[in-house]
Amino acid sequence: MCIRCNDPTHTAVETNQGRRSLLFRGFGLAGAATLGNSLVSATSADAAPAKKADLGSSKARAWAATSPTSSFSQIEIKRRAVGPNDVQMQVLYSGICHSDIHMARSEWAPVTYPIVPGHEIIGRVTAVGANVTKFRVGDIGGVGCMVNSCGTCVECLNDREHACLNGMTLTYNAPDKESGGVTYGGYSSSVVVTEKFVIRIPPGVNLAGMAPVLCAGITTFSPLQHWKASRGQKVGVIGFGGLGHMAVKLAVAKGADVTVFTTTPSKRENALKMGAKAAVLWEERNSLREMGASFDLLIAAVPQAFEIQPFMNLLKTDATLVNVGTLESISGYNAMLNNTARRNLSGSMIGGIAETQQVVDFCSARNITADVELIRPDQINEAFSRVVNKDVKFRFVIDMAAA
Amino acid sequence: MCIRCNDPTHTAVETNQGRRSLLFRGFGLAGAATLGNSLVSATSADAAPAKKADLGSSKARAWAATSPTSSFSQIEIKRRAVGPNDVQMQVLYSGICHSDIHMARSEWAPVTYPIVPGHEIIGRVTAVGANVTKFRVGDIGGVGCMVNSCGTCVECLNDREHACLNGMTLTYNAPDKESGGVTYGGYSSSVVVTEKFVIRIPPGVNLAGMAPVLCAGITTFSPLQHWKASRGQKVGVIGFGGLGHMAVKLAVAKGADVTVFTTTPSKRENALKMGAKAAVLWEERNSLREMGASFDLLIAAVPQAFEIQPFMNLLKTDATLVNVGTLESISGYNAMLNNTARRNLSGSMIGGIAETQQVVDFCSARNITADVELIRPDQINEAFSRVVNKDVKFRFVIDMAAA
Repeated sequence: MCIRCNDPTHTAVETNQGRRSLLFRGFGLAGAATLGNSLVSATSADAAPAKKADLGSSKARAWAATSPTSSFSQIEIKRRAVGPNDVQMQVLYSGICHSDIHMARSEWAPVTYPIVPGHEIIGRVTAVGANVTKFRVGDIGGVGCMVNSCGTCVECLNDREHACLNGMTLTYNAPDKESGGVTYGGYSSSVVVTEKFVIRIPPGVNLAGMAPVLCAGITTFSPLQHWKASRGQKVGVIGFGGLGHMAVKLAVAKGADVTVFTTTPSKRENALKMGAKAAVLWEERNSLREMGASFDLLIAAVPQAFEIQPFMNLLKTDATLVNVGTLESISGYNAMLNNTARRNLSGSMIGGIAETQQVVDFCSARNITADVELIRPDQINEAFSRVVNKDVKFRFVIDMAAA
Repeated sequence: MCIRCNDPTHTAVETNQGRRSLLFRGFGLAGAATLGNSLVSATSADAAPAKKADLGSSKARAWAATSPTSSFSQIEIKRRAVGPNDVQMQVLYSGICHSDIHMARSEWAPVTYPIVPGHEIIGRVTAVGANVTKFRVGDIGGVGCMVNSCGTCVECLNDREHACLNGMTLTYNAPDKESGGVTYGGYSSSVVVTEKFVIRIPPGVNLAGMAPVLCAGITTFSPLQHWKASRGQKVGVIGFGGLGHMAVKLAVAKGADVTVFTTTPSKRENALKMGAKAAVLWEERNSLREMGASFDLLIAAVPQAFEIQPFMNLLKTDATLVNVGTLESISGYNAMLNNTARRNLSGSMIGGIAETQQVVDFCSARNITADVELIRPDQINEAFSRVVNKDVKFRFVIDMAAA
């Protein structure tokens, strides 16, 4: 068991001393000029390694792509000074989401380079602003896909900050309203995030395995909650990668009868081990036909547009296929087939902060984590290729301490 | 007021004698061979013109297309013998639905020729089978888009015969399970339909205006019911033809705040007269943008595929666009835009028999009918062209007595 992160799979066990050294090294400019922010450093015994908070902006090491076709390389970025409502964390783990690849390669839209992805961040708190009450130095926090929102619109007031009508701030490659420029994500040694957008990570959890819960977990948990997946319901998961395998674990935990639809024969066994009742290959069209009109809910966790109607046909009357994977344009919705049974096509994107806390707590209470393969930051390029080739079971997580 | 149909707009006022003559003429073979079915003829005073029921199959005049490009012409068809659960009606009115055009021209799928469309049928009962309890001779009945279903599947058991898992029988151009061949619709002088699939038309209503309620009415009423359109809700109607104008009248009657989206400037005034709060042209993109994320429900009553995303953008979080118009493949669903607000694309197709009775009663109680333009059967070809050119306010109804 690593004393840094409580991760039983983690091999880089460090002493507190080693951890502290890394922490200072990670922040680069630990002694940078102070900018007048009032910071609090915790002194309680369990908050070690306590660190005298640094004031002012700081530099961080980050792994960035500099063009749509470039490899990742290390650069130096600036992190803003820790404001009164901010939490500064040393990044311990950062998951690799397929959307990181789409973004880094400008596949969805042109992005600003250099781009530092990473929105499945687990970190240890190294400093907190004067108004922060949720964290003490030494605590473990998590950051998902967003780091701010207006806080005043009807969506924010209803705990749906991800749908903020004035535009939430994505964790990376979004206009940074606090510091100017663009936001940089978790492929870096440190982050500074408004307290509200930092999730409490309960003690004792597998931290590397919890990182993907901040995106893949909430993205699949939220529709399971909204459409009330529960015991006795038949839930299908289309696409069995990072998001899909979390959908399976969460739906099984809710008691649903889960079927996995995958394109990868070697993953069928994994699906059954995770508690799915069945695992079907997409190409098995006869199986799909036999399952027609039998599902209460389908979660589509495929990272690109796909032929949707064969799966729509699986829905019972009034049931819903929720797309959480692709952000592309979907075509091939057959109105003639869908209208009769009043089938619904819907979509969902991550979830609000309260619901993200809920899924972290849900997973923690049930010992649910992602199946992860830990890599070093210098393996990001290789990991990207393997994700595209569906060669990961099921999520790469960067061990930032291995930099 | 026409004593035949209680239609104040009807010009062909007839005497009972004239009506009776037509009735016999309409059936052509009123004295055809009897086939042993036990029929009941009503004798009460209000059921005039009572007619001694004909036994055996009968011939009827019908207006048919004989190829995808042919004009409509009169042919002779056979109607089955009146079985113990059957109702025989002389067709008084038959609405022209845009789907009649799609079907007659094989635009959705190849059809069987000759094709006799018509699924908005108002008729006067001329004979009933021995087991029939819902109708007496002389009553007015309505037939919509279907004339049978299995009656035993879960959908039928739940009053959703239109979604029958064993396949409902469409009113026209469907395999006729009773008589063999294909079914023939309401562009004809008579029909024979299983009692369950004949809707009671309350006395005193405008019969020509009630005909479209059997398809356009139920098609738009059903989603308004399912998605609970009500006072205080903002409902948009996309496409302002036969279906669309019924959607407006029904949603207004339910107290909703209705906006019409039309491509026809001259129809804006009609929308406001029907109680819509606003009428917007599709091309007014600025108006669409200003209305973003403000609708609780959108009913899309456009008879072909259209650019859907500008309208999806009008939906509030968790709101639904229900397509009831096109049966084509829908593309351009922008997952990135829809996922954040968890917007739903759904579809609905007509409704069950109980709900069709409900919309007829709903309309009757509120004096709601379609705005119709009466035509003679020999004007069907012209009417088809005008429907395609959006040149009708708002539904053509064939006055079968004018044949």
